[in-house]
Amino acid sequence: MVQPPATLLEDWQTLCARRKAAQADSIPPAWVIEPPQESQLNVLLVPETCGLLSARELELIEIGTRDVSLLVGMLATRKCTSIEATTAYAKSAVIAHQMTNCLTEIFVDRALQRARDVDEYFELHGKPMGALHGLPVSLKDQFTMKGLETIMGYACNIGKFAEEDCVLVEMLYELGAVPFVRTNVPQTLMWGETHNNVFGRTTNPYNRKLTPGGSSGGEGALLAMRGSPLGVGTDIDGSLRIPSAFCGLYTLRPSYERLPYHGAANALTGQESISSVLGPMSTSLSSLKLFTKALVDARPWERDPLVIRKPWNDQEYGLVDHGGGKDMCFAILWDNKVVKPHPPLKRAMEMVKHALEHAGHRVIDWEPLNHLDIYRNAQTILVADGGEDYRKDCAASGEPLITSMSPDVDPHPIDLEVTLVKTLLWQLHKEKRALRKAYLDHWNATKSRTGTGRPVDAIISPAVAYTAVPHGLNYDSFYTTLGNAMDYACSVFPVTFVDPALDVPQPPHEFHNHEDEAFYKLYHPDLFPGLPVALQLIGRTLEEEAVIAMTEVVDAALGKYKEEN
Amino acid sequence: MVQPPATLLEDWQTLCARRKAAQADSIPPAWVIEPPQESQLNVLLVPETCGLLSARELELIEIGTRDVSLLVGMLATRKCTSIEATTAYAKSAVIAHQMTNCLTEIFVDRALQRARDVDEYFELHGKPMGALHGLPVSLKDQFTMKGLETIMGYACNIGKFAEEDCVLVEMLYELGAVPFVRTNVPQTLMWGETHNNVFGRTTNPYNRKLTPGGSSGGEGALLAMRGSPLGVGTDIDGSLRIPSAFCGLYTLRPSYERLPYHGAANALTGQESISSVLGPMSTSLSSLKLFTKALVDARPWERDPLVIRKPWNDQEYGLVDHGGGKDMCFAILWDNKVVKPHPPLKRAMEMVKHALEHAGHRVIDWEPLNHLDIYRNAQTILVADGGEDYRKDCAASGEPLITSMSPDVDPHPIDLEVTLVKTLLWQLHKEKRALRKAYLDHWNATKSRTGTGRPVDAIISPAVAYTAVPHGLNYDSFYTTLGNAMDYACSVFPVTFVDPALDVPQPPHEFHNHEDEAFYKLYHPDLFPGLPVALQLIGRTLEEEAVIAMTEVVDAALGKYKEEN
Repeated sequence: MVQPPATLLEDWQTLCARRKAAQADSIPPAWVIEPPQESQLNVLLVPETCGLLSARELELIEIGTRDVSLLVGMLATRKCTSIEATTAYAKSAVIAHQMTNCLTEIFVDRALQRARDVDEYFELHGKPMGALHGLPVSLKDQFTMKGLETIMGYACNIGKFAEEDCVLVEMLYELGAVPFVRTNVPQTLMWGETHNNVFGRTTNPYNRKLTPGGSSGGEGALLAMRGSPLGVGTDIDGSLRIPSAFCGLYTLRPSYERLPYHGAANALTGQESISSVLGPMSTSLSSLKLFTKALVDARPWERDPLVIRKPWNDQEYGLVDHGGGKDMCFAILWDNKVVKPHPPLKRAMEMVKHALEHAGHRVIDWEPLNHLDIYRNAQTILVADGGEDYRKDCAASGEPLITSMSPDVDPHPIDLEVTLVKTLLWQLHKEKRALRKAYLDHWNATKSRTGTGRPVDAIISPAVAYTAVPHGLNYDSFYTTLGNAMDYACSVFPVTFVDPALDVPQPPHEFHNHEDEAFYKLYHPDLFPGLPVALQLIGRTLEEEAVIAMTEVVDAALGKYKEEN
Repeated sequence: MVQPPATLLEDWQTLCARRKAAQADSIPPAWVIEPPQESQLNVLLVPETCGLLSARELELIEIGTRDVSLLVGMLATRKCTSIEATTAYAKSAVIAHQMTNCLTEIFVDRALQRARDVDEYFELHGKPMGALHGLPVSLKDQFTMKGLETIMGYACNIGKFAEEDCVLVEMLYELGAVPFVRTNVPQTLMWGETHNNVFGRTTNPYNRKLTPGGSSGGEGALLAMRGSPLGVGTDIDGSLRIPSAFCGLYTLRPSYERLPYHGAANALTGQESISSVLGPMSTSLSSLKLFTKALVDARPWERDPLVIRKPWNDQEYGLVDHGGGKDMCFAILWDNKVVKPHPPLKRAMEMVKHALEHAGHRVIDWEPLNHLDIYRNAQTILVADGGEDYRKDCAASGEPLITSMSPDVDPHPIDLEVTLVKTLLWQLHKEKRALRKAYLDHWNATKSRTGTGRPVDAIISPAVAYTAVPHGLNYDSFYTTLGNAMDYACSVFPVTFVDPALDVPQPPHEFHNHEDEAFYKLYHPDLFPGLPVALQLIGRTLEEEAVIAMTEVVDAALGKYKEEN
């Protein structure tokens, strides 16, 4: 499968154009639909209305969107076959792609063959293959699959076909899943939007003029369009949580090395000070436990030497460390003193506060601590090679480094500021460790304020200070970096939608800094009507089970509150 | 407590001499004994014969040496008081120090006051304070204690008094323990011997001309002399295992971040590629479970943000992943192809092989893989700052960097080779990760050879290729680095003693390299009679519970085998 890199033969523009044309050719001709009018901004209903999906297919997608564990239950009891589910989602994904440019690798025949194999397994053995039997799963364009390219946003990766599956894919196969599409990412992976020179820009299906976020933005757009029941993304600085927030999805950012990353392609390879982690993204909450438990139960530490040997803990999922889930105390981070959240986020936090109080829990204010120092420490770590990683991958094909996600800025070569690393990295680790200890002590000290005899059970915070913004304007990871730098397990969950009548602009506050002022000025309710508003739940390090369970508590409280109000 | 560093006022020689004199003054005058004759090499029996300890004190020490959990049981049921146990061990430690120079901080009054407080707690509450109630515990000179200096082998730390306890000490106090002495280390902490400019050289009580190993060599000498029932050391490249092997002790090197290191002083602070870990050292096997379980049960992740949230797992201790401890398969690493072990080590491995087979287990050969590559990768990581850490600490007082552990080499200033770090560290991480994956796959592949349906349960290997050697000659971490670089949980356990009649020199083999030849030539049975011979048991990452249990299996098999042969 190994070919001489095409980069040696052609300029990067030709190379990218040819790869993009090959992608178009990989769409089954019968599934090609009319491209959207430029004026059609919201494309969410296209899969339902375009006429390509049968009633049965739409039903399966509706079920998978509402609750992926129901679909898994149907597959495990042969109430539907994998070929049915995979066909439905493959169609829907290809439609989503034609509306938002969310895919990279499209391999319908291979996915359907895999679905057939899984179905045959069931017929032969009379039981499902594993915990994800027959389930179509979409994968961010880092998760290497044997025989496919892993372009990951760089022209230099065109024509390099993987010789083996990454550990995640290997395990998904054993669990019975059907990887069926791969999804778009930004060049370098280090943007909160999704655009690269090979596959171009992914748009937000709620409003194609807006970004779906990034770097797992292909997943964000695909999932929001119901093009997949369960996707896998990654997060080094917010890359699971930003697109989940912008696209109204659930996600889990697990702590470092809980889930198996080995063999996946990545940016900044070898950087282990703030490790990128993988996690599930989905329209349905049940995905978080389904995916995490399935993988952890399959003992990933036997495949990936860095994965922590920590079995799924049902007691922790039962909230043994959080009063059994009764009479908990949550704290809300209304403003981290770096960027003040937009009005819809404030309203979402108020909704959650009322919902939790209504459900018998206490809610107090979270006092922010060192958020800017934590942010600076983390960002310095992430460029500790002076950008060499990016430059090397661009130089390999000659493509320019993308320096803005705005459609109005032409890419041009620049020199990133070179940060000298000698001993600096160790100094940054010392600083990070001290910041982690200070935050831990700060959290523990809330014990005196909660009334539960415990410190705050979880923090509720924005994931981003705003909802999805126009392309080129998302340069905020101020609310997500905390989780990566402190290594807190966190989730994102959708709360509501922007309502211009309720989310009125606020008078200017004393701005924390220049960015805060810029973000304040960006807000106008008419710009963002109907966009999803999501929040983040932040738990302790390696507390995935409890974070999933607490997200379920919050989600249920919110559902009940919405019903009653 | 903070004073201007004395280093600003005096030259380093004066400073060190004054500190050493102050140490001598801290020994209670009634406990001063005759210094040993230069010709008296073995000083093990001095505590018993010097007349300073009462019969009751010797009895308590005998019990604590044989099985520390028995002593803990007596303390927990008031069959002895903490003041009794602490007095006995403080005397014994001070005697050990006068024979081997193994201590740094001696604070008898403070320790006895703590013991009294613990006893009063029991009287007041009618129950022990915690799992280590009343137990005297010795600490390597890294474990910061409020109000004491943490000299850690550097003159520049003289006169700097700690303002707080490190997390370990904080937790030991809550568990009811009595920290009662601190123990010597080498300058830089990065030697397998124990000598520095402040406190001087620690010797091996089996033969004072030999090294006790390092860097936890003060603990090694102290424990071998029964001067403590339980010590705490650290290990970044073998520093728990080398002195345990050279002094005939048990130890556990846990995986990274299982036990709380926060707040302890350290070399190479901020270096997190190969993390130093702390662990117990003791003459008694029961110390491993006692110490590890006590700390893990106290939820160290609530104090140290880096500690992995992994509760003590009784199923793993019950060897659920190893056939319940029956019919296991061990593999012996007879020779790692870097340095061939000396004859006593070979005999020890043969003893273990027979003992395990006798007990119904299978024993196969371990095929070494990439040991030299792993060693080189790790050593490069550890000097990735070009020695700046060492130079800085030496420069602060003007003391010279010690460049040899030999008593015959004068310290003189040198320039360590500067290793450029820029991006290199990330490259080293990539290489390390690949080496870890290769070793994991290699281990898993043994499944076809074990006959148990599982891969090899644990590897039995030397900890060092030889027994304790003359000062200045220990520059081998070839058998310990594997555990640090791959992050395997491992233990050391004593097997036998050098017997010149049995451990005859072997004819020369084809030497693996220059070091191998040098070590071969070093062996002569008359040089090492009666020295302890210990081995290492290597388990998987974060498998502390199983490694402790498997060490118990091996130790029991060995005990039975010795009885019968």
